[in-house]
Amino acid sequence: MSDILLQLAQVLEARKEADPDTSYVASLHEKGLNKILEKVGEECTETLIAAKDAETSGETRALVSETADLWFHSMVMLSRLGLGPQDVLDELASRFDLSGLEEKASRNR
Amino acid sequence: MSDILLQLAQVLEARKEADPDTSYVASLHEKGLNKILEKVGEECTETLIAAKDAETSGETRALVSETADLWFHSMVMLSRLGLGPQDVLDELASRFDLSGLEEKASRNR
Amino acid sequence: MSDILLQLAQVLEARKEADPDTSYVASLHEKGLNKILEKVGEECTETLIAAKDAETSGETRALVSETADLWFHSMVMLSRLGLGPQDVLDELASRFDLSGLEEKASRNR
Amino acid sequence: MSDILLQLAQVLEARKEADPDTSYVASLHEKGLNKILEKVGEECTETLIAAKDAETSGETRALVSETADLWFHSMVMLSRLGLGPQDVLDELASRFDLSGLEEKASRNR
Repeated sequence: MSDILLQLAQVLEARKEADPDTSYVASLHEKGLNKILEKVGEECTETLIAAKDAETSGETRALVSETADLWFHSMVMLSRLGLGPQDVLDELASRFDLSGLEEKASRNR
Repeated sequence: MSDILLQLAQVLEARKEADPDTSYVASLHEKGLNKILEKVGEECTETLIAAKDAETSGETRALVSETADLWFHSMVMLSRLGLGPQDVLDELASRFDLSGLEEKASRNR
Repeated sequence: MSDILLQLAQVLEARKEADPDTSYVASLHEKGLNKILEKVGEECTETLIAAKDAETSGETRALVSETADLWFHSMVMLSRLGLGPQDVLDELASRFDLSGLEEKASRNR
Repeated sequence: MSDILLQLAQVLEARKEADPDTSYVASLHEKGLNKILEKVGEECTETLIAAKDAETSGETRALVSETADLWFHSMVMLSRLGLGPQDVLDELASRFDLSGLEEKASRNR
């Protein structure tokens, strides 16, 4: 159940070097950082709209899908700039004093 | 190392009912969904700006911090609408055929 | 030189009822408000990116083009909801005590 | 009624050099481009939310106000980067073959 983001990060790294004609992730990298950031902004807008629609309708499927798109493209952005979800999770863990930091201290990064 | 998002989700649920004068999360809920969505949009903008600055300077600390803000506020949004990070992780897992789905099938949701 | 926005508003009203196969504006209206708002958010993101690139490169052509896209799509949004650029210009004029308000008082709206 | 944006642009230029303690525009310039862009993104988000609320409620006052904020801050952005609303209006006029271009050709820019 857990570690989905870390597994996904591995997929994203592997696809960085894939064929842009068959890999969406590779096609984003070929187009460059601006294209990746455009997608982050676009998916954020779609998330906001889906949240307002969920508020009115009670229907949350689109919101889950758009938030997944937002997190996905923000992970492509992190990957593009040499980062990964662990950097963000560590930041959140340290802010909220969540467990896992001892474990982190003993890891090779 | 893992499960940070799920631990954070528990913190967010607990703080939903806290005193808005002492809890930032409670103060967001008191102001309502629009305020929460404004924060999501604001943090997305700050993430995009930090990514452009990281591209130019090579300095990524601000980008990690802003992405953490973006994920954090999108989790407050999910919580507001009766959802949690697991819904988004399940969506990502099913799209990318990542492990953990068997485990999910046996969970009570 | 002036009144460009008001002329453009007339074009937007006329195209509201045009054939979606030949008119971009009509195709946006056919898809509905969410699609129009997605475009506003998308063009805002592209404007922010172009502004950061202009800061680094000194080259402003893309920024002018993206800002035009942003204003254009925000005008389609206004039109969709029964408003026009005059409503926004009146708001700005009243905030900044700019001239033209007497003129407005004698207009039929 | 017209030329509001051009009058506003003159106000914005004048306030660029004002005291940041008494002028909001001067305070934005003192904080720099990133702060100005954050405001553009923030006001875009608020515009999207107001549009969704207008769709549900039929009440459009907040949407007019938020769109005015969006246009205002995008004009501060243009001013910051040595541009003005005329550049954007010219772009829109040329795209839509609107009048005023002869006039523009004879202007000193």
